[in-house]
Amino acid sequence: MIQHEHDVLLEVNYTGICGSEIHYWTRGQIGPFVVREPMVLGHESSGTVVKVGKGVTNLKIGDRVAMEPGIPCRRCSACKNGTYNLCKKMAFAATPPYDGTLAQFYTLPEDLCYKLPDNVSLQEGAMLEPLSVAVHICRQAKIQHGDSVVVFGAGPIGLLCCAVARAYGAGKVIAVDIQKSRLDFARSFAASATFEYSGGTAVESAQKLVQENDLGDGADVAIDASGAASSIQTAINVLRMGGSYVQGGMPHADIPFSMVDACTKELTIRGSFRYGPKDYETALGMVATGAVDVKGLITKTVPFEDAEQAFHEVKEGKVIKLLIAGPSQDV
Amino acid sequence: MIQHEHDVLLEVNYTGICGSEIHYWTRGQIGPFVVREPMVLGHESSGTVVKVGKGVTNLKIGDRVAMEPGIPCRRCSACKNGTYNLCKKMAFAATPPYDGTLAQFYTLPEDLCYKLPDNVSLQEGAMLEPLSVAVHICRQAKIQHGDSVVVFGAGPIGLLCCAVARAYGAGKVIAVDIQKSRLDFARSFAASATFEYSGGTAVESAQKLVQENDLGDGADVAIDASGAASSIQTAINVLRMGGSYVQGGMPHADIPFSMVDACTKELTIRGSFRYGPKDYETALGMVATGAVDVKGLITKTVPFEDAEQAFHEVKEGKVIKLLIAGPSQDV
Amino acid sequence: MIQHEHDVLLEVNYTGICGSEIHYWTRGQIGPFVVREPMVLGHESSGTVVKVGKGVTNLKIGDRVAMEPGIPCRRCSACKNGTYNLCKKMAFAATPPYDGTLAQFYTLPEDLCYKLPDNVSLQEGAMLEPLSVAVHICRQAKIQHGDSVVVFGAGPIGLLCCAVARAYGAGKVIAVDIQKSRLDFARSFAASATFEYSGGTAVESAQKLVQENDLGDGADVAIDASGAASSIQTAINVLRMGGSYVQGGMPHADIPFSMVDACTKELTIRGSFRYGPKDYETALGMVATGAVDVKGLITKTVPFEDAEQAFHEVKEGKVIKLLIAGPSQDV
Amino acid sequence: MIQHEHDVLLEVNYTGICGSEIHYWTRGQIGPFVVREPMVLGHESSGTVVKVGKGVTNLKIGDRVAMEPGIPCRRCSACKNGTYNLCKKMAFAATPPYDGTLAQFYTLPEDLCYKLPDNVSLQEGAMLEPLSVAVHICRQAKIQHGDSVVVFGAGPIGLLCCAVARAYGAGKVIAVDIQKSRLDFARSFAASATFEYSGGTAVESAQKLVQENDLGDGADVAIDASGAASSIQTAINVLRMGGSYVQGGMPHADIPFSMVDACTKELTIRGSFRYGPKDYETALGMVATGAVDVKGLITKTVPFEDAEQAFHEVKEGKVIKLLIAGPSQDV
Repeated sequence: MIQHEHDVLLEVNYTGICGSEIHYWTRGQIGPFVVREPMVLGHESSGTVVKVGKGVTNLKIGDRVAMEPGIPCRRCSACKNGTYNLCKKMAFAATPPYDGTLAQFYTLPEDLCYKLPDNVSLQEGAMLEPLSVAVHICRQAKIQHGDSVVVFGAGPIGLLCCAVARAYGAGKVIAVDIQKSRLDFARSFAASATFEYSGGTAVESAQKLVQENDLGDGADVAIDASGAASSIQTAINVLRMGGSYVQGGMPHADIPFSMVDACTKELTIRGSFRYGPKDYETALGMVATGAVDVKGLITKTVPFEDAEQAFHEVKEGKVIKLLIAGPSQDV
Repeated sequence: MIQHEHDVLLEVNYTGICGSEIHYWTRGQIGPFVVREPMVLGHESSGTVVKVGKGVTNLKIGDRVAMEPGIPCRRCSACKNGTYNLCKKMAFAATPPYDGTLAQFYTLPEDLCYKLPDNVSLQEGAMLEPLSVAVHICRQAKIQHGDSVVVFGAGPIGLLCCAVARAYGAGKVIAVDIQKSRLDFARSFAASATFEYSGGTAVESAQKLVQENDLGDGADVAIDASGAASSIQTAINVLRMGGSYVQGGMPHADIPFSMVDACTKELTIRGSFRYGPKDYETALGMVATGAVDVKGLITKTVPFEDAEQAFHEVKEGKVIKLLIAGPSQDV
Repeated sequence: MIQHEHDVLLEVNYTGICGSEIHYWTRGQIGPFVVREPMVLGHESSGTVVKVGKGVTNLKIGDRVAMEPGIPCRRCSACKNGTYNLCKKMAFAATPPYDGTLAQFYTLPEDLCYKLPDNVSLQEGAMLEPLSVAVHICRQAKIQHGDSVVVFGAGPIGLLCCAVARAYGAGKVIAVDIQKSRLDFARSFAASATFEYSGGTAVESAQKLVQENDLGDGADVAIDASGAASSIQTAINVLRMGGSYVQGGMPHADIPFSMVDACTKELTIRGSFRYGPKDYETALGMVATGAVDVKGLITKTVPFEDAEQAFHEVKEGKVIKLLIAGPSQDV
Repeated sequence: MIQHEHDVLLEVNYTGICGSEIHYWTRGQIGPFVVREPMVLGHESSGTVVKVGKGVTNLKIGDRVAMEPGIPCRRCSACKNGTYNLCKKMAFAATPPYDGTLAQFYTLPEDLCYKLPDNVSLQEGAMLEPLSVAVHICRQAKIQHGDSVVVFGAGPIGLLCCAVARAYGAGKVIAVDIQKSRLDFARSFAASATFEYSGGTAVESAQKLVQENDLGDGADVAIDASGAASSIQTAINVLRMGGSYVQGGMPHADIPFSMVDACTKELTIRGSFRYGPKDYETALGMVATGAVDVKGLITKTVPFEDAEQAFHEVKEGKVIKLLIAGPSQDV
């Protein structure tokens, strides 16, 4: 199972379920990615090294690692320019046609396995995947110390964005959602304030949000982790002149969007796609130093044989983050 | 008329008519800016120094200058951070409630007057204003030597964006418009290729544009200088992974916009508003060295008393750029 | 005493003594700056508003503020480009020929006074000046979350650099000095580790430092806040390929310097001079949120009449930071 | 000879001689790189594809290519972060212990071979290597359109830096050297002005250079392509506040260096080492569009059997650039 000298074979310990996988499971598609053949799901995993290729130098059998689940081609322009997440030949776990990590074993190149220090558990290791997504989003936002940051959507990625923004030194971090219970959790987890969206125009919501949170001329940074049209439109109105917006959640369709404001306020709007160089390292550092408490998001962990039931629970929105233990892993 | 020690009094020589002024003239409004009292139009001007304040050190009576027509507060956060074009207290010529430059005299701080070298005419001096708009747009696009750049809209700003992109070392510069005659002009002026938009979906138009121009995985940079929904949507589809988009023309309303593509292609989208630090200097350098030929855009120059007729001609789209001589200036 | 409409008159509450002022006091010179006439010292101050100009909108009588003690011209290229600290016409307190703040009253433009929130004391307000120096140094270093940072020199600026680096999310922050007592303080204040320099070549010291602190291929960032040749040379050797170096302390003379290493390691080396846009705001945020404890550096506060004695104590190195109360201020 | 599926086998057509190779040839060492076993020289080459691995998709037999002669590991942090030129496992032609390209055949991965368009000759193809060095240096300098650039040293790299700076839109490009004949050539090749260094302190030389060339507050950018102490010291003094310096030539030893100026002028100083992502593409674009005339630097081309004589001529400084034809290549 080790074909390349730089590969390691891993026994998978824990795998989180991602919202995108619910889409594959129920509709066989997410955005431009369509499932055409049977495909193993799972890409938020930690594992233990059970075999190493002959060129492996930094890992040994028994090492506990977080698994970065996408293998770039390393040769294209995107890869060589420091943006391997944009590689068109990326082989990404549980993105068709590549199988995912909900299996007993998985093979990865050594450099995509991040050795966990003793104070980071294998459950936390599995959480590095969504945390890296949040790290990449916040990196795209170029958050400065003291910035005010508004995060739309208080699901796992939005919550982790709140935590990463704080670790980056953000001043006010305001979580926005339509569900009060999620906002209550956000406040206890990492947000410094919350805003419950309750209808009205984007301009009105934005004004209310700015006023309630004393944001003066507007927020420095807005992050959308919801994909909802109303969030995206409100976010543009929440920003100050020269502010930054990052699209972190995948919207379902075209969004009517105020390019007039983007233009006259000279906003910078960036997409964020998965994670790239240093994102896993940064995420691991945040967990190891206690800057971000990913354990707080794990609602529960279930044995491998309960995987299907776990997907139902995630689909029904009953949990924040649910982990599935590997086939040989006790819960 | 000189109130501050750093001010100079200028006799206005030439003033170009900007499309935005047609909006004020016919509808009394452009985007969020509404005319509520009589207002002098004009902000694309050159002038000659006739009086200097006692603190003026770099200009003297008789100097011929290009006039940067917006006075920032110099004290707010935007001004101090190197983005004075985002100053909320900006006093901008011919933006309500501030009078414009279609007058015999105009007062400006010395540092907003750019002395013209002998080989740059006063007519060219007036053209530095729209050229600075194009310089700022291309700066926002962060064009690298060899980049492929697609410019939507072949009006004055789009044409100047083509020229500036080439001066910045762009490889392919493709002008896009719906009018063949404008594209023919663009090709002769500064575009290395053209694309006539003739309906179809954004995805189809983009594919055709990419194919015809051999852009491989897509363009590095797209600039919209049209404000049209179809342009903006096509532009997003024309870009490669990680490409840059700049909104240079003011759209009329909300634009249904593919945030999915912005996200999965990890685009950077920036607005561009007027011009800021160094833009006038850069524009002047481009004209003085011959890198950009602004004279080529001046369809004609008319005497001051024909100003109203001139506005009619601009409104009817009969000219590319029309200059109005100052009251004391022979045509 | 209020000449400009945007000025406020302040009664000075506290002023810290800066090492540079010892140079003026004892030698009448620091680097290129020479004292030619009697000059009031002091530039690290907090004050209370006692009078406001008619154009003042954000401050009122009684407001407690930190005083940014340098007034830029606001009109030159450096000012307009977001680097007003490089303004050649800067009027800086206690830099010849401008008087400093060790006086009862001082006048400043409103935008250079930073209102202290209730939880920040006037003593802490005076400390924002050296903290802003450290903020600017760390900004020049472009510290990323998780970076390893080595700070040479454990005087007030070096100590504050350690604290700011941690607030910016630095992983390891290693203070370097020749005095064990200063290193002990650094460790208790903000450094995560220390290194006592005890002679040897730059290459040897650097290797030892890297090894002891498990820095692998070298540190991400090195900051010199000592001005000593041995520090600067060691710093270059401590850095990894592509690392960043910032010169924060003023060296006494030319330093023999390994440009070979700068070249083959492709280092980025930046000077840092005073502070610029947003530095005071960032510093205030760090104090207000508790991210940096500036109080910990204040060894003692003395009444105004003991100012001369205070200068002696600073000169003799008996204190970390010493504040002098304003003439009307109780200690 | 094709071991990896992405490799191509090339028949070498032309190889330029680089000054660094003279060091290996005469002293067996350059900087930290020491020759310990017999080693083939040569790394500035063009070739023709004679065999392709089974994974090669963009090249076919008969394609004429410029050869980028360093193979990075593609897996380390430097490689993944967009700085593969800093890879510690780089296998670089004619850097010990790796053989160079002065041979009949050479193997390279496909992505490091740049297909030459019909209007670029194989001699020009060999010149892309030094041109890429200059492109990388100018990229490190972050030259803006209109910048004044002073280049120290008018050898091949300095000359190419002048040409690249102009292609990037630099305004004034001033070549500095101690030999009038080299400066005359520089002026005819790409410099807009020249300065003959003739002793004196760094401060005096810098003042004279600034005055003669009307550089006002100093140059925006200084590039050293000489490695001489006097150049480096003069360069620091030539720069304006906030200017940029790039070390392009390898100095022979430690250089006494004014860190005081670097600090108070807040300079940015960067090393430049070889070339990285996009540098070859940019270089090829500059040649293909005629922006840089590399042919003008080729003094002569000699047959393979005259290679040793060619090294003597380069050593004696009789030529600017000398090419050696491949064993099967007619001159």
